[in-house]
Amino acid sequence: MPTIKRLPGYLHIIEAARREGKEFISGTVIADELELEPIQVRKDLAVTGIVGKPRIGFPVEKLIEAINGFLQWNQVHNAVVVGAGNLGTALSGYPEFRRHGLNIVAALDTDSSKIDRQINKVPVYAMDDMKRCIDEHHADLAILTVPSPAAQETAELLIEAGIRAIWNFTNVKLKVPSGVMVQKEDLSSGYAVLSVKMGRRNHH
Amino acid sequence: MPTIKRLPGYLHIIEAARREGKEFISGTVIADELELEPIQVRKDLAVTGIVGKPRIGFPVEKLIEAINGFLQWNQVHNAVVVGAGNLGTALSGYPEFRRHGLNIVAALDTDSSKIDRQINKVPVYAMDDMKRCIDEHHADLAILTVPSPAAQETAELLIEAGIRAIWNFTNVKLKVPSGVMVQKEDLSSGYAVLSVKMGRRNHH
Repeated sequence: MPTIKRLPGYLHIIEAARREGKEFISGTVIADELELEPIQVRKDLAVTGIVGKPRIGFPVEKLIEAINGFLQWNQVHNAVVVGAGNLGTALSGYPEFRRHGLNIVAALDTDSSKIDRQINKVPVYAMDDMKRCIDEHHADLAILTVPSPAAQETAELLIEAGIRAIWNFTNVKLKVPSGVMVQKEDLSSGYAVLSVKMGRRNHH
Repeated sequence: MPTIKRLPGYLHIIEAARREGKEFISGTVIADELELEPIQVRKDLAVTGIVGKPRIGFPVEKLIEAINGFLQWNQVHNAVVVGAGNLGTALSGYPEFRRHGLNIVAALDTDSSKIDRQINKVPVYAMDDMKRCIDEHHADLAILTVPSPAAQETAELLIEAGIRAIWNFTNVKLKVPSGVMVQKEDLSSGYAVLSVKMGRRNHH
């Protein structure tokens, strides 16, 4: 799990190296960029099956392909954004998602002023049309950005409508039946790193 | 670094245990919730200085206090959101931030239709008023949500205006002088975990 979460960061750096025309990249370079230990990076990259050469490093092209394969980012998943508010709209337009096979095909909202309009070119449907919207768009993932009080109820409707994977941006810990995957996103976690660093600096 | 990023997730679970009236929580319970190894959780929690008792676990109240102390979440940081679009607006209203001492005091934008208005009760200033806005609000952190082509230039203006910590939500790798901290946020990293799990399930 922790390895999977670090791989996208590695991929960013390795893709930047490719844009600069580099054919090889060392684990130490990746580690330095992300303030990790080189041994950690090499252990993580071992899951891809790509072996680095001493003094030369990992082959850039093969490593990118292997990470994308490991993360299943070469597969397309159709997703509905549930809640067409600011966060839902921002995620609908997030350019990195499409590159990783995450295809936001529709949004759902209860607000009639939003329905039948578009957010970042994504059509917005009425919450009542959830089942039809999910079926027609072959969505297998829901991105949950509704207000917290509506989170559990909305998750249950999504599961009833056939969704088996929920990316949860609310601060509610969802109760779901076994077989349904939930990934909870916490935007505070990036702030933790900054906060610790700012505190350290102020003490020196 | 990886420990710091995991602590907010632990904190969530320990706070939930407190709400349920529990006085102790075991590392194994935390590990199960987050699909981590118990040894990992115990190693991470060791940084707080709180010692768990065998068979009983960690004292909930002390552990919460120690994690908040370690993450410097008992300190207040004033932040400006740069870019008052959908993501900037969503972050301005994100309820968890204030609980962790992250106080969004103002927003900056180039769009004159947004200036002198509010996004989630946060006043929006013209980009030209950056220096004055940062000084008046005693901001020491900038949350960067401008379009990628404007990211580097805007970061330079922020640094000129005295900002020494940037939370970067754009997909640009910022070049900054030493002494300026940048934390890059990548919303794809949570998707990586879901994507791998969805792929595994489809193969069974």
